[in-house]
Amino acid sequence: METVHSIPLVRAGIDTYRQPVVYMRSDCHLCRAEGFSALTQVEIALGGRSIIAALNVLTGADWLAHDTAALSEAAWRALAASEGALGIFSHPEPPASASAIRAKVYGQRLDLAACEAIISDTVAHRLSDLDIAAFITAGAGDRLDTEETIALTRAMQRAGKTLDWGGGMVLDKHCVGGLPGNRTTPIVVAIVAAAGFRIPKTSSRAITSPAGTADTMEVLAPVALDIPAMRRVVDAEGGCVVWGGSLDLSPADDLLIRVERPLDFDSDGQLAASVLSKKASAGSTHVIIDMPVGPTAKVRSAEAAKALSDRLLAVGNAIGLSLRIHCSDGTAPVGRGIGPSLEARDLLKVLQCEPDAPQDLRSRSLDLAGALLDLARSNDCHGRALAEQLLHNGAAATKFQAICEAQGGFREPGLAPHRSLECAQSAGRLAAIDNRRIAKIAKLAGAPGRQRAGLLLLVQPGDSIEVGTPLYEIHAETPGELVWAQDYARSGPSPFQIGDPA
Amino acid sequence: METVHSIPLVRAGIDTYRQPVVYMRSDCHLCRAEGFSALTQVEIALGGRSIIAALNVLTGADWLAHDTAALSEAAWRALAASEGALGIFSHPEPPASASAIRAKVYGQRLDLAACEAIISDTVAHRLSDLDIAAFITAGAGDRLDTEETIALTRAMQRAGKTLDWGGGMVLDKHCVGGLPGNRTTPIVVAIVAAAGFRIPKTSSRAITSPAGTADTMEVLAPVALDIPAMRRVVDAEGGCVVWGGSLDLSPADDLLIRVERPLDFDSDGQLAASVLSKKASAGSTHVIIDMPVGPTAKVRSAEAAKALSDRLLAVGNAIGLSLRIHCSDGTAPVGRGIGPSLEARDLLKVLQCEPDAPQDLRSRSLDLAGALLDLARSNDCHGRALAEQLLHNGAAATKFQAICEAQGGFREPGLAPHRSLECAQSAGRLAAIDNRRIAKIAKLAGAPGRQRAGLLLLVQPGDSIEVGTPLYEIHAETPGELVWAQDYARSGPSPFQIGDPA
Repeated sequence: METVHSIPLVRAGIDTYRQPVVYMRSDCHLCRAEGFSALTQVEIALGGRSIIAALNVLTGADWLAHDTAALSEAAWRALAASEGALGIFSHPEPPASASAIRAKVYGQRLDLAACEAIISDTVAHRLSDLDIAAFITAGAGDRLDTEETIALTRAMQRAGKTLDWGGGMVLDKHCVGGLPGNRTTPIVVAIVAAAGFRIPKTSSRAITSPAGTADTMEVLAPVALDIPAMRRVVDAEGGCVVWGGSLDLSPADDLLIRVERPLDFDSDGQLAASVLSKKASAGSTHVIIDMPVGPTAKVRSAEAAKALSDRLLAVGNAIGLSLRIHCSDGTAPVGRGIGPSLEARDLLKVLQCEPDAPQDLRSRSLDLAGALLDLARSNDCHGRALAEQLLHNGAAATKFQAICEAQGGFREPGLAPHRSLECAQSAGRLAAIDNRRIAKIAKLAGAPGRQRAGLLLLVQPGDSIEVGTPLYEIHAETPGELVWAQDYARSGPSPFQIGDPA
Repeated sequence: METVHSIPLVRAGIDTYRQPVVYMRSDCHLCRAEGFSALTQVEIALGGRSIIAALNVLTGADWLAHDTAALSEAAWRALAASEGALGIFSHPEPPASASAIRAKVYGQRLDLAACEAIISDTVAHRLSDLDIAAFITAGAGDRLDTEETIALTRAMQRAGKTLDWGGGMVLDKHCVGGLPGNRTTPIVVAIVAAAGFRIPKTSSRAITSPAGTADTMEVLAPVALDIPAMRRVVDAEGGCVVWGGSLDLSPADDLLIRVERPLDFDSDGQLAASVLSKKASAGSTHVIIDMPVGPTAKVRSAEAAKALSDRLLAVGNAIGLSLRIHCSDGTAPVGRGIGPSLEARDLLKVLQCEPDAPQDLRSRSLDLAGALLDLARSNDCHGRALAEQLLHNGAAATKFQAICEAQGGFREPGLAPHRSLECAQSAGRLAAIDNRRIAKIAKLAGAPGRQRAGLLLLVQPGDSIEVGTPLYEIHAETPGELVWAQDYARSGPSPFQIGDPA
């Protein structure tokens, strides 16, 4: 056994996102004795846990006491550390999965054992971000085949908890993403639960978008439920819309996404493994997947949609999920509001059958709920009619209210105090809306961190536009953020593509 | 144009190795207004420079003032920042080369334009470590072909300065590495310069080994010369052995190596581009490459040596270098000392023709000097005899002394005050020595940071060993480091493989 060294741990209060970092002084005896320097990966053990952290060396900073080590937030959490606890430091051996990644990089195929080694080392923080980047790169494009994707999906599912609903059908819904305002989930859950099916939906918060489903739902009711609380809601009401982040259902996915997102390589295999491992972990049996297709959506062409659908269906079939893909229009945002509170207002209008409810959001929600009901009812093709009936007769609205109360209490969405109208500079027919620029304006206005921030679309593709026609309204909670969003919106190309009058 | 925001920069005094990091408080108005969070890459401009830095958010640390941004050492240097200077912050556009990396990841080949984009963005700190890891991964194994390697070599050379020696032959020498104590360079330089040739040698410091050539040479003379000082030495003496790190000859190489080293993927293409771009930048025309082959050396088999040699020769030919590969025995360390000062003592003994000079170091140095002289003298095959003569008649020793004086003055290598003998636990014939474990013991003893630390080998493969035979002596500058090295040496498998008596 190699000699070990213990030194007290303190919390650095530095958020490095999910990367474990340890800060030590350059004159720390451990740095010198172990030959640790600022490119070293260090293994730190505490209690039964151990992590690999990147060492950053303090050369001119005086905020750390001699012979102590400060941990970034990610390292602090992963070790469940407490102030002054003695961490045991050593040079890490290369993790077992490094050779599995190496083999894939060199062109070999991944089997289940390789995937399990990689995923368990990822979850245990034994792989560095560079290792994970190599793994992501080696599987980019079409470099994961279907068998490898199935192995990766199984490994990711096994790395976290799996919810057990005690048998019977468990319905679920997922959207491949990239479309601002596409907040169908709470409506679909309400309709499907009103139809008597079980639909325990876990959703994510926004990472790069102006709102995730969990952010929007949180405007209306608490979403940070633990598993027992989630079970109580589902047992009582058949459905829920809660934040998945605190349930530890897919710990590997969160860690891989941290690296995937900045690299931004498309990989049907990695996307399928990410989505379907989460569905399997949630205990789902019947899943509808909304796949918006459009030039500024995540899936950009019919060919890309076909390849991704084939992969999802093959993997879903292999792991025992009943899966249906629903391709939808991805050329423009959905509904009128973009941002948590504005989206919540839209979906309430749909549920309450108000005359000014956004018809595109209503229609998409009915399509998805109908397709999911068909899937659960052996494709009897009456799903959409049933969904429409449950929306029309108020059963879905009543169910949604009950779900909100069960999750901790319904609350009304508010309106932001600072607003500005943005008007057209040219005339013509509105041809398309750039999802990415619209999302950026909403984020600069404060979404999703500020619930009431975002923007309200006042036109939709196909509308005739005059010079001066109000196109959208920016909503912000502070005057400064309003200016930020306006400045960006008024510079560069307009997100509204106005063509010749039809 | 998008709105920009300026805030004052301060130096964080945190060494993140070469990664640019910016630290901002979570309540900084810029974080909130721009939607910066702890997974954001931030562009910072100052004067004519700009970098992409990873944002780390201070959530519980109070060492940074409101609305200021602290820079890691790498970011501070790259921006040439001064305390309080106003940095201009913005969201970076994806660098142009990201699409070149993406294309390579998806299986397309790199051309010269793609390589130049990637390398210039690397040098400008516009690619994140994750991007660079993706690039390294996409070229691992045999995924860079010879044409791509040539393009990468040219791009790497063009990214830095190229030394111009005004025509004529410029000799050079490189070792592929992995063999502790293989410190032939100063001897080869002395012999070749004594023969009247020009050999302006730039060497590196150790990164993961117990000593680099620059570390060992620094025991004997100053090595951190700038280009004018290096020229004066070469003009006066024909040769030099200086540290290449301060000459900016291969800025891309240093940045790629930061990521390559922890990933540790073998890539003949990347190795060839790294070595040969540096030789081209140094203005070399005739280069001998020492390639030790052995199971614990960098090149592990004859097949691997053949593939790497073929690649080096093809690329060298394409960029106009006269190149010769010299494969050598890589089964054990060379000489007796491991660590800067101990290796310096070995090479002085060889140069001074002392009777107890390590014969393996002498013989390898003569082989390499002879092969290089042959290459420069149109393969007349008298090179080794000439080298031997110049060593024997004292011309090489005199030349070495003159080079040291010209570099700033010769100094005698000292001996460490703390030493311990390690003896054999079993008897038999010494079959092999594990280069990697030997290197680790020397590093734990303090090498290369402490010049006199390391170890002295007292036996070599082929020797008969009795129980209790002294195998090596650990040298340390402090008692604590001596214990560290002893503890490691006495645990785990012995680095000395003792077989049956012959």
